[in-house]
Amino acid sequence: MNPILSFAFIGGDLRQIPVIEQFLASGHEVMVFGLEQASLPASSLLKICSSLSDAINDAKVVVLPLPYRSDENHIHTPLSEAQIPIQELFSLMKPAQLLFAGRTDGYLKALSELYGVRFWDYSTREEMAILNAIPTVEGALAIAMAETPHTIHQSRCLVLGYGRIGKLLAHTLKALGANVCAAARKPKDLAWMVADSIFPIPFKGLGDAVGDFDIIFNTVPDMVLPASLLAKVPDRCLVIDLASKPGGVDFEAARRMGKKVIWALSLPGKVAPETAGIIIKDTIVNILEELGVSP
Amino acid sequence: MNPILSFAFIGGDLRQIPVIEQFLASGHEVMVFGLEQASLPASSLLKICSSLSDAINDAKVVVLPLPYRSDENHIHTPLSEAQIPIQELFSLMKPAQLLFAGRTDGYLKALSELYGVRFWDYSTREEMAILNAIPTVEGALAIAMAETPHTIHQSRCLVLGYGRIGKLLAHTLKALGANVCAAARKPKDLAWMVADSIFPIPFKGLGDAVGDFDIIFNTVPDMVLPASLLAKVPDRCLVIDLASKPGGVDFEAARRMGKKVIWALSLPGKVAPETAGIIIKDTIVNILEELGVSP
Amino acid sequence: MNPILSFAFIGGDLRQIPVIEQFLASGHEVMVFGLEQASLPASSLLKICSSLSDAINDAKVVVLPLPYRSDENHIHTPLSEAQIPIQELFSLMKPAQLLFAGRTDGYLKALSELYGVRFWDYSTREEMAILNAIPTVEGALAIAMAETPHTIHQSRCLVLGYGRIGKLLAHTLKALGANVCAAARKPKDLAWMVADSIFPIPFKGLGDAVGDFDIIFNTVPDMVLPASLLAKVPDRCLVIDLASKPGGVDFEAARRMGKKVIWALSLPGKVAPETAGIIIKDTIVNILEELGVSP
Amino acid sequence: MNPILSFAFIGGDLRQIPVIEQFLASGHEVMVFGLEQASLPASSLLKICSSLSDAINDAKVVVLPLPYRSDENHIHTPLSEAQIPIQELFSLMKPAQLLFAGRTDGYLKALSELYGVRFWDYSTREEMAILNAIPTVEGALAIAMAETPHTIHQSRCLVLGYGRIGKLLAHTLKALGANVCAAARKPKDLAWMVADSIFPIPFKGLGDAVGDFDIIFNTVPDMVLPASLLAKVPDRCLVIDLASKPGGVDFEAARRMGKKVIWALSLPGKVAPETAGIIIKDTIVNILEELGVSP
Repeated sequence: MNPILSFAFIGGDLRQIPVIEQFLASGHEVMVFGLEQASLPASSLLKICSSLSDAINDAKVVVLPLPYRSDENHIHTPLSEAQIPIQELFSLMKPAQLLFAGRTDGYLKALSELYGVRFWDYSTREEMAILNAIPTVEGALAIAMAETPHTIHQSRCLVLGYGRIGKLLAHTLKALGANVCAAARKPKDLAWMVADSIFPIPFKGLGDAVGDFDIIFNTVPDMVLPASLLAKVPDRCLVIDLASKPGGVDFEAARRMGKKVIWALSLPGKVAPETAGIIIKDTIVNILEELGVSP
Repeated sequence: MNPILSFAFIGGDLRQIPVIEQFLASGHEVMVFGLEQASLPASSLLKICSSLSDAINDAKVVVLPLPYRSDENHIHTPLSEAQIPIQELFSLMKPAQLLFAGRTDGYLKALSELYGVRFWDYSTREEMAILNAIPTVEGALAIAMAETPHTIHQSRCLVLGYGRIGKLLAHTLKALGANVCAAARKPKDLAWMVADSIFPIPFKGLGDAVGDFDIIFNTVPDMVLPASLLAKVPDRCLVIDLASKPGGVDFEAARRMGKKVIWALSLPGKVAPETAGIIIKDTIVNILEELGVSP
Repeated sequence: MNPILSFAFIGGDLRQIPVIEQFLASGHEVMVFGLEQASLPASSLLKICSSLSDAINDAKVVVLPLPYRSDENHIHTPLSEAQIPIQELFSLMKPAQLLFAGRTDGYLKALSELYGVRFWDYSTREEMAILNAIPTVEGALAIAMAETPHTIHQSRCLVLGYGRIGKLLAHTLKALGANVCAAARKPKDLAWMVADSIFPIPFKGLGDAVGDFDIIFNTVPDMVLPASLLAKVPDRCLVIDLASKPGGVDFEAARRMGKKVIWALSLPGKVAPETAGIIIKDTIVNILEELGVSP
Repeated sequence: MNPILSFAFIGGDLRQIPVIEQFLASGHEVMVFGLEQASLPASSLLKICSSLSDAINDAKVVVLPLPYRSDENHIHTPLSEAQIPIQELFSLMKPAQLLFAGRTDGYLKALSELYGVRFWDYSTREEMAILNAIPTVEGALAIAMAETPHTIHQSRCLVLGYGRIGKLLAHTLKALGANVCAAARKPKDLAWMVADSIFPIPFKGLGDAVGDFDIIFNTVPDMVLPASLLAKVPDRCLVIDLASKPGGVDFEAARRMGKKVIWALSLPGKVAPETAGIIIKDTIVNILEELGVSP
């Protein structure tokens, strides 16, 4: 990104700090509002603003956090006392400005159409999902290390699903010396496991296999560990569910049966906010380059 | 595949042997025609037939080789003196029989419609392409080892493309201790490189980078190394093109400039016919299972 | 170990449980004293004893913990209220009995000569040191993950020393995607780094290098990070000292300069007591096999 | 090596070329004799000499090849018609000159004492042995790839011995996706295998294990595969012996039984002469640094 741009950062958590740092380091101008409790770098290019309009006014790009809102209609501002109505933001924006936000939804879409503001959701970009798999995997490892009395090395691990997170997790467990199986439905995923030297288990064979592991990681956002399968999981086995939204484990049944289940969500921001921030920044830069904003 | 099936193998090269061996080992009946020079396992389930109709008559599944034909209208029979017209095969088949063939085309499709024969092309299945990447990569390594005076360890390698072969090749080179860069166009491929700890180079930056390597592997079936880029490749660098059909290197320009370029095609059957055969067999089994032929 | 033996376990921490479990599982008889707070497996081969003499009397092998004593003259019994004088144990032992203990010293040696008891220190065996490197490395990773805001992936790591722990740690960091350098004195260690694809730094070059890292791990039990080198370590860098006894960092200087230093000792028992126990058990079995006790 | 030195290279094979190239590139003066058929780099620092005395006269360091002699009393000169008596070389050397040679023996030692010439054998240095393991392993892989009809990936490999070559070979096979077992005698070597996630087999258990592999690599220069064990090796298994001197396989018995055995010696110079030369050069530099010749 050669030409100097001006960014407005409104709200957000610790992850915004490295985003801001790196844009400053590249020589861009940064306005900030709703981040009072963040310790930001000293820079002549940084302007801490005392009002939303001050922050937005001269910005070319406005960046909202991930997720962009915390409740019905306010921007997510965990590092600030400020209450920022989303609608107010839109009312201040001009058509030439670009809006970036994370985990956008119908509400934001509706406002953007109403006010004629163009927006991009960086959180749905594939490169962001791929890169976020890295801190997710490290977070999962940290949980596995903390919650078991044995090493990951030589432990028997099962990874459910072989998408971005499943693949990277299986590789990493193997690199740490675990005996790793993975389960998936499609022949192509099972073929990738063979190519990656991960022992492949077709989903339909899970019933016979699920009793043989020390740790089971789920990455599939579907009910893949219902009560019937959980019943075959030994009590000493640790189940870590990394799947978002409904998760992939029958948590109620697990509790009843006394199984050890941990539902680990949003790991990147928790275990590696700095890395998570750099990923957000890289994704925004990619989008800007595609838009030709920074030729 | 529980139920016993009967297979007819018509023609083919060394790769057919492990396919036949494994079907026999699973208890299936195998009829063979057009493979006289192959040394097949002794088995009471194996029937070497003296005519095409003998071989096909009682078979549930008829398997043609990869590629299925060697010229206009004959089946590919490198291990036999037999000349088998493809049309004759179709004329002998019944509607209940299943036909498997590799690298099928409009000609086979037309015949299948004419004669009402259902066929499946195992060579276009994604799991087969993934698994074939394994012997392809080992073949590429063998070439690199034989054709350079240095080890792969500590050599500087560039992999063009980050699909199935590119990904597996980059990982393997890295595992052997090479310094590995890969190049691709899409942000998602570049993100995968980061996740896989392979140094990412956007295609548009190739001009600056291409002079820094000991070995360049191409996996993209597009003109990615035109004369303008080749001119920047040092004379001592070895270029191995693994891309099929038109290849990805301007071979004519390379010869003129005195660059070391090797176009390595169809490596699986050449370097590991046994493995290549097992892959064919696994793929056929997958298709049969999806068809419910072997419940 | 075919023939059935009888073991007495006196004192010890959580690591003794898997040792006891595995000896029971192999069909050996186990007497226990000084482990009341441990939850031991139900087994007809297990005898919880109410006195030291009861436990020792019929045992062929007596096993003391690691370390074998907690103060001047008592056995280490963190899971018991019992106070067991070491001298009393010796006074009860017979010449045909074998004594195993961890971290033995002159005191135990003197008693063993006085009472004519043969003993073996499993904690000084090389295979135990090698195997303990595994949980040590995982413990170090867990600390690095918890104490930095970034992932290990893509972080710049320096490992001081290339012995058992240094080597395994460097490999593991690399497998996690870190950029790993290691430092050592001897040409042979630097050559191993090259062979292992770890960037080698001669110790004499540390001054120039030490400013470039996110995490520095020390494995050398010598003053390798004196104040003069610490001064060049950036404040944001995390230093994890894994070296026993005096450690390898000038901790006093580090505190004064505000550097982030963590001295992590005895990780195996802390992060993976079960694995640590299995290692103790495997080592005892090796010694017994060498003694011909279990032909 | 800062100060400019003058080197004389007498005889040798292709590996001498990169040694000479790198010393020239570092600014040193190089005299050459007995290498007429080598294509050496153009350089004003290089002097092709027409007599032995010309080459040696002004040199500080005289470098003989690896091995230093080809017969009773002549220097090894495969790239020259010259016949150079070793004794003549010694008669021309002065006490201040340093002599480097490979695979030295009693004969050279005797001459060095007779003539008062100090010599160093770079081929016995541990770092050289470690670094040479790299091209040895790649050479072994190339043989395995060429001589089997299957991929190394998913093949079952046994590595006999877990020293420098055994360790690196086992790691590399594993990285290529093979199922790797290794065998050794000492508990510490078996413990390293566990730490390295290589399946450990004690030597005494070889009889039961040796029938289960596709490829067996020997690295132990002792009779580890006598006729009694070879008899249990399946005919289809490929045995590659990498051990020097007597080798570790009963070759006579193997021939009689029709086993596939390849004795692969001196691989570095054959498969990667450039890398092998760089290793020689690095080792000579290490020795010179230790001697304080290049402060």
